[in-house]
Amino acid sequence: MSESASPLDFYFDFSSPYSYLLSEKIDDLAARYGRKVRWHPILLGIVFKATGSAPLTLQNAPKAAYSLRDFARSARFMGIPYRHPEKFPLATQNAARAYYWLHGQDCALARQFAHAVFRALYIEGLDVSAPETVLEIGAKIGVDRNRLETALQSPEMKEKLKQEVDAALALGVFGAPYVVVDGEPFFGADRLPQIEQWLASGGF
Amino acid sequence: MSESASPLDFYFDFSSPYSYLLSEKIDDLAARYGRKVRWHPILLGIVFKATGSAPLTLQNAPKAAYSLRDFARSARFMGIPYRHPEKFPLATQNAARAYYWLHGQDCALARQFAHAVFRALYIEGLDVSAPETVLEIGAKIGVDRNRLETALQSPEMKEKLKQEVDAALALGVFGAPYVVVDGEPFFGADRLPQIEQWLASGGF
Repeated sequence: MSESASPLDFYFDFSSPYSYLLSEKIDDLAARYGRKVRWHPILLGIVFKATGSAPLTLQNAPKAAYSLRDFARSARFMGIPYRHPEKFPLATQNAARAYYWLHGQDCALARQFAHAVFRALYIEGLDVSAPETVLEIGAKIGVDRNRLETALQSPEMKEKLKQEVDAALALGVFGAPYVVVDGEPFFGADRLPQIEQWLASGGF
Repeated sequence: MSESASPLDFYFDFSSPYSYLLSEKIDDLAARYGRKVRWHPILLGIVFKATGSAPLTLQNAPKAAYSLRDFARSARFMGIPYRHPEKFPLATQNAARAYYWLHGQDCALARQFAHAVFRALYIEGLDVSAPETVLEIGAKIGVDRNRLETALQSPEMKEKLKQEVDAALALGVFGAPYVVVDGEPFFGADRLPQIEQWLASGGF
């Protein structure tokens, strides 16, 4: 496999509106250039604690107000349905663990699950921090509820998520969405045009 | 004058690479939609103190490193020459006061001066915090050095700049570049495509 065909890495937290926006576009964009995307749900709470940062909506008042406006406007600009969730930000370790557990068995199902979690949160406004909601989302796409419930509490899945967050921090991830293309990092859904240009020309 | 023909407001600090990038594009973009742009140099140091924020390059190490990379890459993406200045961030009250003093006499000359300050900093790497550099930049475009030197220290220009920063804070400006189009705020040079769409369609 040549370097130019290597997959993109997409780091995200389900509790990140701009991650949701990018999640609706990144696979199709990569596919147009013969690339696949590796999805890595991480926990921004740990990343922000390590880097001394905070979610946009918990920063200063004018920035928080602007961010809420920009989430919705950017979604409209990108042609993606969006409704800001009542419960936000929210804990996403259950959804992330479920993703990695599914990914160990069926990559395509894990991708389907990730989209379902994002859409449950940003279209339906469901509280995806609750294990019950995560199990329900899984059940709708054919995931065994009992096995998933066990997996959410398993030491292996807790450890797997911890390792993924640690790896992201080691790579320099300080927020989300964060995409790496052949070693080049791109932060933010608004870097999509630059990612496309990079894929088209191998750098610029 | 109809509302749709009202000018855009562009808030910026000379010590903001993304403000420089936007400054090279915003007038031409607005002109394509029959609009003018009012330029407002402000002091991000005061804005950040008021909002509890900090320049990107003084935030956490991975974010600072990414920002340096993104300044240069975004400039290449936008087709704008860029070299990160050795002295950065830097104080810009002299350049901002000079701008407002010139603007009181000759709007076009003030615009020319603002471009010259940005380019002196981000292409030539000059220390535009120094009064001498500001006077030199002015002299090159025909500004009387003695009168400008007096203006930089005048209580009127100090007060004018203070009023502009206060007005920006009152409007909700929390960083730069910050552009307002018919009441709609856009933060960041990367919102240029959204600004264009807003101008083209009167909102979306």
